[in-house]
Amino acid sequence: MALGEFDLIRKYFTRPTQQAVLGIGDDCALLQPTPGMQWAISSDMLVEGRHFLPTVRPERLGHKALAVNLSDLAACGARPVAFMLALALPRVDEPFLAGLAQGLFDLADLHGIELVGGDTTAGPLNLCITVFGELPPGQALRRDGARAGDALWVSHPPGGGIGDARLALEVFRGHLSLTGEEFERVRCAMEQPQPRVALGQALRGLATAAIDLSDGLVGDLGHVLRRSGVGARIEVDALPISPALARQPRALQQQFALAGGDDYELLFTAPATAQAQAQVQAAADAAGVAVRRIGQIEAQPGLRLLDAQGIELTLALHGFDHFSC
Amino acid sequence: MALGEFDLIRKYFTRPTQQAVLGIGDDCALLQPTPGMQWAISSDMLVEGRHFLPTVRPERLGHKALAVNLSDLAACGARPVAFMLALALPRVDEPFLAGLAQGLFDLADLHGIELVGGDTTAGPLNLCITVFGELPPGQALRRDGARAGDALWVSHPPGGGIGDARLALEVFRGHLSLTGEEFERVRCAMEQPQPRVALGQALRGLATAAIDLSDGLVGDLGHVLRRSGVGARIEVDALPISPALARQPRALQQQFALAGGDDYELLFTAPATAQAQAQVQAAADAAGVAVRRIGQIEAQPGLRLLDAQGIELTLALHGFDHFSC
Repeated sequence: MALGEFDLIRKYFTRPTQQAVLGIGDDCALLQPTPGMQWAISSDMLVEGRHFLPTVRPERLGHKALAVNLSDLAACGARPVAFMLALALPRVDEPFLAGLAQGLFDLADLHGIELVGGDTTAGPLNLCITVFGELPPGQALRRDGARAGDALWVSHPPGGGIGDARLALEVFRGHLSLTGEEFERVRCAMEQPQPRVALGQALRGLATAAIDLSDGLVGDLGHVLRRSGVGARIEVDALPISPALARQPRALQQQFALAGGDDYELLFTAPATAQAQAQVQAAADAAGVAVRRIGQIEAQPGLRLLDAQGIELTLALHGFDHFSC
Repeated sequence: MALGEFDLIRKYFTRPTQQAVLGIGDDCALLQPTPGMQWAISSDMLVEGRHFLPTVRPERLGHKALAVNLSDLAACGARPVAFMLALALPRVDEPFLAGLAQGLFDLADLHGIELVGGDTTAGPLNLCITVFGELPPGQALRRDGARAGDALWVSHPPGGGIGDARLALEVFRGHLSLTGEEFERVRCAMEQPQPRVALGQALRGLATAAIDLSDGLVGDLGHVLRRSGVGARIEVDALPISPALARQPRALQQQFALAGGDDYELLFTAPATAQAQAQVQAAADAAGVAVRRIGQIEAQPGLRLLDAQGIELTLALHGFDHFSC
């Protein structure tokens, strides 16, 4: 006998609530905000074939669905508190659900947050997560605070770089090939991104603007520049590149690092003073993540890409857009 | 030229925020909770062919997607504040988006709430809304508060009843036929349910338990009975039935009213005293909605369905479950 919807929810997704006033099982979840704090909220929807491949292991899908949402909280500098999960499933597939729940809860436990409610329905596979975080009023990292003269930074995995998720995607698509070990490493970057939650909180009061890299560095930086009313230059040779990507042709390295998408690293600006730079480095060290200064905010609108000699490059790049590419 | 994702969001869904600290356009929305209040949160996902027909007008789809979420806040007695929208679209269809936004915003404006963020992606049509409401701590209407002796009530449209949404669905399916005028009326019940937000708030401190009717009265009542550790009897002839449904065979009336699904009315319990009954009636009058006492909570577990003579009926009923029917 097939399990009914309610049994499914109970079996895989219901755990005792630790912090919520009321969790799964009523019409609404109830949460008691910490007095004086603001709420940061974000929703991301993942669709099969667009945000993940049908071949992904369910544990990694569960991880990624929550990770991309936590990455939005990280970009605001919020402390994650709870999340909701709405799930459309083409069929009742218990091993899939068990794996999905495992991946979700492992990452949730790592960040001390809990699943407080959601919805389950039949339909083409779709995961929609809404995350809630807290932060002190006025301290959110926003997209509109970058100022001319600020240094431009990007986070990256220690020993790794940005663009690896796109490299893995192109291997899956059969356009490129890698050794088995290299492939496993970049596949992890694509399927199990690590949201920079600790770094985001450590940058409060230090970064002037921040965004998480989901659509590609150039496209995401464009949002910051437009909302802040500024321009920027990027020293392309300063971009952090992993050993696997560094073995690809130079044009591919630049393309994937600048416009690959799915990085879930933080791109942020901070004053260019020696003191602020030391503070950024200390924040990254404390968060266990690497950061690299890759450019500068300028008053002149637009984005300029420069090589190590300061010569402007002309690259045909575009950010990832779910409807235009 | 096709509009990109960001242009789409801007064009149809971005309006200036009135209450939110920060609305659409950053990594997270920022909300400042009212000091001392609790947050009620609910997510509902709507899938084409399961929660709505491909023929539905986009305005009505926008209305319904938000209405079913507001209905969950109503069932908790929360005051709606804001919502997030995540949307998967098979193609860029501007008339569809314009209509969807119109239906969403008309209902949002009616309840004084605003869209603060979300996500847009390509994929099989899917709408996931998460709603946020506020209420004083300890005052939420929950499923676990029903006590033996309580009266069992259901809300309904003035002059209408429950079961009309299922009646409309069966007409769409070609199983039944109605006159044009009757069909329009029950089609409205199916496509434009009115969430009982004012009634839910008016029942705070009065109702002992509440749930909204989404899966059918018997199934939804079952959740209340299980969580409250009680049983109930329903006087089947007391169920509110619309004139259109009243013209159908008696067995269909009972089936649709008891297990039709998609009603989005409130089912609630309250003390059976004359004073409490008068207060329930006054709350409904103030909210502009009708209520009917349809039975009683009993200590004996299980649900008993009785006719006007008090004789127990045996009906083959089941609640709506997205995976088992």
